[in-house]
Amino acid sequence: MNTSTSNGVVANRSNGGRPIVDKEVDFANYFCTYAFLYHQKEMLSDRVRMDAYYNSIFRNKSHFIDKVVLDVGTGSGILAIWAAQAGAKKVYAVEATKMADHARELVRANKLQDVVDVIEGSIEDVILPEKVDVIISEWMGYFLLRESMFDSVICARDRWLKPTGAMYPSHARMWLAPIRSGLGDHKMSDYEGSMDDWQYFVDNTKNHYGVDMGVLTKPFSEEQKKYYLQTSLWNNLHPNQVIGTAAIIKEIDCLTVTVEDILVVTASVSSSIIKEETRLCGFSGWFDVHFRGSKENPAEQEIELTTEPSENNTTHWGQQVFLIHPPTHVRSGDDLNINFAMSRSKENHRLMEVDLGCEVKQSSGKLLQSFKHKFFIE
Amino acid sequence: MNTSTSNGVVANRSNGGRPIVDKEVDFANYFCTYAFLYHQKEMLSDRVRMDAYYNSIFRNKSHFIDKVVLDVGTGSGILAIWAAQAGAKKVYAVEATKMADHARELVRANKLQDVVDVIEGSIEDVILPEKVDVIISEWMGYFLLRESMFDSVICARDRWLKPTGAMYPSHARMWLAPIRSGLGDHKMSDYEGSMDDWQYFVDNTKNHYGVDMGVLTKPFSEEQKKYYLQTSLWNNLHPNQVIGTAAIIKEIDCLTVTVEDILVVTASVSSSIIKEETRLCGFSGWFDVHFRGSKENPAEQEIELTTEPSENNTTHWGQQVFLIHPPTHVRSGDDLNINFAMSRSKENHRLMEVDLGCEVKQSSGKLLQSFKHKFFIE
Repeated sequence: MNTSTSNGVVANRSNGGRPIVDKEVDFANYFCTYAFLYHQKEMLSDRVRMDAYYNSIFRNKSHFIDKVVLDVGTGSGILAIWAAQAGAKKVYAVEATKMADHARELVRANKLQDVVDVIEGSIEDVILPEKVDVIISEWMGYFLLRESMFDSVICARDRWLKPTGAMYPSHARMWLAPIRSGLGDHKMSDYEGSMDDWQYFVDNTKNHYGVDMGVLTKPFSEEQKKYYLQTSLWNNLHPNQVIGTAAIIKEIDCLTVTVEDILVVTASVSSSIIKEETRLCGFSGWFDVHFRGSKENPAEQEIELTTEPSENNTTHWGQQVFLIHPPTHVRSGDDLNINFAMSRSKENHRLMEVDLGCEVKQSSGKLLQSFKHKFFIE
Repeated sequence: MNTSTSNGVVANRSNGGRPIVDKEVDFANYFCTYAFLYHQKEMLSDRVRMDAYYNSIFRNKSHFIDKVVLDVGTGSGILAIWAAQAGAKKVYAVEATKMADHARELVRANKLQDVVDVIEGSIEDVILPEKVDVIISEWMGYFLLRESMFDSVICARDRWLKPTGAMYPSHARMWLAPIRSGLGDHKMSDYEGSMDDWQYFVDNTKNHYGVDMGVLTKPFSEEQKKYYLQTSLWNNLHPNQVIGTAAIIKEIDCLTVTVEDILVVTASVSSSIIKEETRLCGFSGWFDVHFRGSKENPAEQEIELTTEPSENNTTHWGQQVFLIHPPTHVRSGDDLNINFAMSRSKENHRLMEVDLGCEVKQSSGKLLQSFKHKFFIE
């Protein structure tokens, strides 16, 4: 018997208030995905993502010419290659998975082996021969912070970025907005179907096999509720589905933020309904990041990468959708007071738990509805 | 940097010839699935499985009345409960996951808490207060040995079964037969589609982003071949799809088999085509187990649980399908000489690798075709 959970977080020990992570388990759970070219291809086929990073480098070449660059989590090596093509003197491309071998091949095939050093290893363990002028990284997970990869970028920054260095991207923001969606009805119907199946199963097991499973109905229902109703959904929403003003719930300066600053995200924000008559079905979360260079060396052209609901510029991140059941009827001018709190899952520090409370008020101030729900970003 | 792989098998160390398993990683990769009631329900809804175990106990009550029973990997506790209902004096129900809590609730709800002790822990670590008369366990994975759970049952047997004790099930066999199937064409078309996409991606990345990804075409193709063409498929075949005689490739006496005996399964067997004119599209593997009691105490009624292709008695195990590309035209009377070898994956001891060689001969002895393929049971 041991005290650790199944997802690599060893309980009952402390590490400056944060749980110690079992690196082997973390590798099995998390990094292994990135060792597949198929997965790399999905990210490399995200045009919004690619254009933003490409433009941030090539429209801002002076930040790269003759500079030393570190790419944290290089994957296939694309950002490191671009940095080299833009004129970097040296690029350190660090990758924790076997994808490093492919990155090295790609660097060689593009004749950049004299500039780009691909290093296989965790950024936390790697020793570089020098400090760097720029850290570039595509570290963003669903709703920005899922995967907790930014911890590694912060670690790299604190160890390897020169005092005058720049972060690419330099800033990040999290957004939240009320939405309408038909997904909630589907999910509720899936949940109800699953519980009907269960009831049939309980009856059948009692009649045919003499065992009464009824006592497990409550835990089964909780398991299914979590799965169907409390797990946030990946979705690329149409802008029309956003029914109220969007609120910023977190702003991050990548040059100064600490891991402590992103362990928990809390915000009390308000939103005004902007659709005539509609249903408040839940909330959507997304993020944007900006490439602004640093104060000493501002970018020549500022680049934005946004994952907001969009008709044409969808990303592989999509948005995270938190559904509420049942929907509430709202109309233009109604106000929402939203309390949002996101923290890391105790069982797996790369997954998130969200507490979302909301008061729905008419413009007269009359309270229409109030609720508080727990969600899981899995 | 460390020497271990991502699936819990630590390389470069020895443990009687077998790799040492990182228990935390194994838990994250393997056991966690069994902690979901949804998954338990799927197994408990498999009528063929349920009937076989139910009948093995209740048509053979004398083996259970006043006996001490150990259930290895009790899950929801169903086998332990049946053993108690059949008259066991004491049942130890061991379960590695948190499902143990639900098993305990179920035992209490069925008023068997004085007979059934649910113990949460790995069977390898558990200390029982006495030796047992019967070990019952549902340890079978896809194609019998996937999951390698039988290792734990062998460990339990060697430690806790009385010399005169019985294993439930007592025997197991693995079968292999040639099949026809339309799946191969689908999979080949999926693979080709994926490679077409890749080529488009390579062109696009070169034209828009100035990076030549061509060097990754070969590793991408290998990754996709493994995924689409070399990974065995779960399928419930129709008996008509079996086109030749089925061969036994492994027989196991659960009372005497050792872990060494099941690390590798090799067989040279033959099969005769029994369909008039057809296509040899691949091979199918399945298993059966028997409940025969022990030599000293043979079962009153022998029970069989088979996962062979069946029109009405399908199981959640289905069959494993190994596809060959392209199919070979064969006819009644043609003979297949098959060389089969299955071993555990180096990266994850619960997954399997298969080498399958075959010679197709006319009844005249003329060689029509010969091939050798590698497969992965993931």
